[in-house]
Amino acid sequence: MVEKITPMSEDFNQWYTDIIQQAKLADYSPVKGTMVIRPYGYSLWEGVQSYLDKRFKDTGHENAYFPLFIPNSFIQKEAEHVEGFAPELATVTHAGGKELEEPLVVRPTSETIINHMFSKWIKSHRDLPMLINQWANVVRWEMRTRLFLRTSEFLWQEGHTAHKTENEATIEARQMLDIYAEFAENIAGVSVIKGIKSANERFAGAVTTYSIEAMMKDMKALQAGTSHELGQNFSKAFDIQYTDENNELQFPFQTSWGVSTRLIGMIIMAHGDNKGLQLPPKLAPSQVVVIPIIPSDEHKSSIMNSVNEINDSVKSKFRVKIDDRENLSPGFKFNEWELKGVPLRIEIGPKDIEKGSVVFSRRDGIGGKYSVPISDIDKTIQTVLDEIQVNMLHSSKQHQEENTIHVSSKKELIEALISNPGFVTCYWNEDSDDENEIKEITKATLRCYLLDSTESEISVNNSNEKGKLAVFSKAY
Amino acid sequence: MVEKITPMSEDFNQWYTDIIQQAKLADYSPVKGTMVIRPYGYSLWEGVQSYLDKRFKDTGHENAYFPLFIPNSFIQKEAEHVEGFAPELATVTHAGGKELEEPLVVRPTSETIINHMFSKWIKSHRDLPMLINQWANVVRWEMRTRLFLRTSEFLWQEGHTAHKTENEATIEARQMLDIYAEFAENIAGVSVIKGIKSANERFAGAVTTYSIEAMMKDMKALQAGTSHELGQNFSKAFDIQYTDENNELQFPFQTSWGVSTRLIGMIIMAHGDNKGLQLPPKLAPSQVVVIPIIPSDEHKSSIMNSVNEINDSVKSKFRVKIDDRENLSPGFKFNEWELKGVPLRIEIGPKDIEKGSVVFSRRDGIGGKYSVPISDIDKTIQTVLDEIQVNMLHSSKQHQEENTIHVSSKKELIEALISNPGFVTCYWNEDSDDENEIKEITKATLRCYLLDSTESEISVNNSNEKGKLAVFSKAY
Repeated sequence: MVEKITPMSEDFNQWYTDIIQQAKLADYSPVKGTMVIRPYGYSLWEGVQSYLDKRFKDTGHENAYFPLFIPNSFIQKEAEHVEGFAPELATVTHAGGKELEEPLVVRPTSETIINHMFSKWIKSHRDLPMLINQWANVVRWEMRTRLFLRTSEFLWQEGHTAHKTENEATIEARQMLDIYAEFAENIAGVSVIKGIKSANERFAGAVTTYSIEAMMKDMKALQAGTSHELGQNFSKAFDIQYTDENNELQFPFQTSWGVSTRLIGMIIMAHGDNKGLQLPPKLAPSQVVVIPIIPSDEHKSSIMNSVNEINDSVKSKFRVKIDDRENLSPGFKFNEWELKGVPLRIEIGPKDIEKGSVVFSRRDGIGGKYSVPISDIDKTIQTVLDEIQVNMLHSSKQHQEENTIHVSSKKELIEALISNPGFVTCYWNEDSDDENEIKEITKATLRCYLLDSTESEISVNNSNEKGKLAVFSKAY
Repeated sequence: MVEKITPMSEDFNQWYTDIIQQAKLADYSPVKGTMVIRPYGYSLWEGVQSYLDKRFKDTGHENAYFPLFIPNSFIQKEAEHVEGFAPELATVTHAGGKELEEPLVVRPTSETIINHMFSKWIKSHRDLPMLINQWANVVRWEMRTRLFLRTSEFLWQEGHTAHKTENEATIEARQMLDIYAEFAENIAGVSVIKGIKSANERFAGAVTTYSIEAMMKDMKALQAGTSHELGQNFSKAFDIQYTDENNELQFPFQTSWGVSTRLIGMIIMAHGDNKGLQLPPKLAPSQVVVIPIIPSDEHKSSIMNSVNEINDSVKSKFRVKIDDRENLSPGFKFNEWELKGVPLRIEIGPKDIEKGSVVFSRRDGIGGKYSVPISDIDKTIQTVLDEIQVNMLHSSKQHQEENTIHVSSKKELIEALISNPGFVTCYWNEDSDDENEIKEITKATLRCYLLDSTESEISVNNSNEKGKLAVFSKAY
């Protein structure tokens, strides 16, 4: 049942697809470019949702739901927005047996419909800030698709907010970026860089786009979440006006921000290995799998008693799976749960029971197989899971640092991007043409300017101008 | 800000719309027949989701996600299914700037796409039962729409399962109906009748459709949830076959079941009154609103201290809202929270503080305004909320019983349905033509045959045949 997984080193893309199919995270659907998220993959998405939804609410946001269909004329209202999204739209032309008077676009993102509603709801400064989030499906017709990373339909959340001042909008956009980074690092165990996109890579209609970027195991970058300051672009396009404290009409400043099921692709490619998934304990649907080792029938009842006792004492604290399937060898089960990325495996056999202990085996391999006394097992499990969680982030950070180099000239930048599969940093003076040149030569893009870096030095692309610290990389 | 609500007795439909708009549950969207669910309405849906999702998982179901778009050819595969849904389909003909080779239908329900995937996943008896649920949006192009009750797009959950035997499928379909009834009665506080649909009202493609039916305040019925036995109709249409224990190929027996955002319409129409919503404590986003009564500035700090102390002592147990908005009168606030249906209001003024008490006022009006000591306030709140919850179900049940009559002849049935706006029960011998006749004359439909009734007596429509106990009513 567990088929061979293509080794990462042989073909990273095939390795990725093998893991998704064999761990039953997702499957191809009969509609080109779309996917089915299977229960194991969906439970990871539920983990993402449950953490982020709480953080959004903690920070004052409320969930709402807006229509899937958007009148075509709405999409046209913001000039850059329509230019960015027009090539990817899916359009409903017929409904209820008739041709529609105006075609309806299946939402690629909801700025336009939400801002139309905001124009009805926002009348006074007392209506601000307006802090809305939506969990929804969106459709962007993609030519080259890849499971979780780029599909014609995907699940996401999109936050949409309106504020009195530009400064408030900046604080909001950065706060949400911080929440995304906090999720990536503390929950998913993936080190991320926080940055600002260049004009070339900015969201269609935004003034500033922030992103978090993570390094995958093949050293490519993955944009894992974005947060945008929209300025007054949409409030002006949709005529959202409120009366301020002085009774004067004003346009609010806005933000939007989102993460998607792409995060599941990130988790696979940041942590997986040739055996399969490696899931961070805080997200793993099963944190612990207990496998009874029953060499013959006479041992069965005593071993299952011990398994059940252990389960009873820890199941309120951890997500535990008991694998008592018969007619399957322990070795088969070990492989399957390694494929599924369960952080901790516990084996219990007759000799363990005699000694009052069990055998631990961590998915990250640290410590090999080792014996642990049954007494205090809940504390031991907690310690091990905490260690694994910390260790995953540490490994991810180390991987990123070891595969990042800094360069001081454009020549070095190009050479590094061609020969080096990781991140390359340099001081860069914003210039769309120069950026396109790098992309054409190397296929790498300017991922972002580092948000935490305030220094500026002479740039690699213009010796007369200083630049900001930027990261270039090939990316998903 | 609180506008006049049309009295129920004057125009029930306008009353319903007024409440939805003024309590900010939902709003009309620019796309005909679709709606925007505003945060207050969405939080009710989150309450529905959180209860049901847990119950689905308790009973072994897993969530997954299937594509929004379904190839047109799939819809055609099950003859009754296509006949039932064809008139309501919305169709995507263009995507990514090109005309599609095969038009894609926006899912009206997901039997076809899910069963296509089941045919890939179900190979052996060991793969059964397969128990899947999906939370999703669906689209059914409706001519006559009404907020929450009938919109072109709505949110719902749809369960889809496959079983080895017909009996297992029956048990599953009834179990899910029971869970819906349990939600309606114990959480939403709405009395429901469990029944079986006549062939005329059955789901397109089902062998048996079960439903729960509730009586609204205008005495009309609302179908609040359905659960279907699909027999082998879909497994044969989609060629789902598994090898059984004897290594023979078999088609599984299937079920599907769903509830939607329509449940929010049910809660409004089952409990609301001329002041606004009445929310059951178990679902209310705010269970308690605390309103400080501050006659002059000198009292402000002492009153706010008491309010904050009370909040600190109860906020971990209840969902509490403190309404300390300035420049709004207590009377204005009372009206607003009554409109929003908050079960319990607590007022705190200077005289209350002197006495070490607060004033309680229940949204259901029982007990009027009365004084309660601050000591033990958490227990008092719990008792009151429990009483309100029980009382709401009791009132709903009483309303249903008082507006249900039993008749013994077809003539009486027709007269009752014309003159009586409630439920009419009788013994009915399944007959499609007779049923259509009743519908044409009275506009009422056979809601269901009572599931709990096993008796059969001579039917009102055929004096030679016995019938089963049926409920007729006008319905939403």
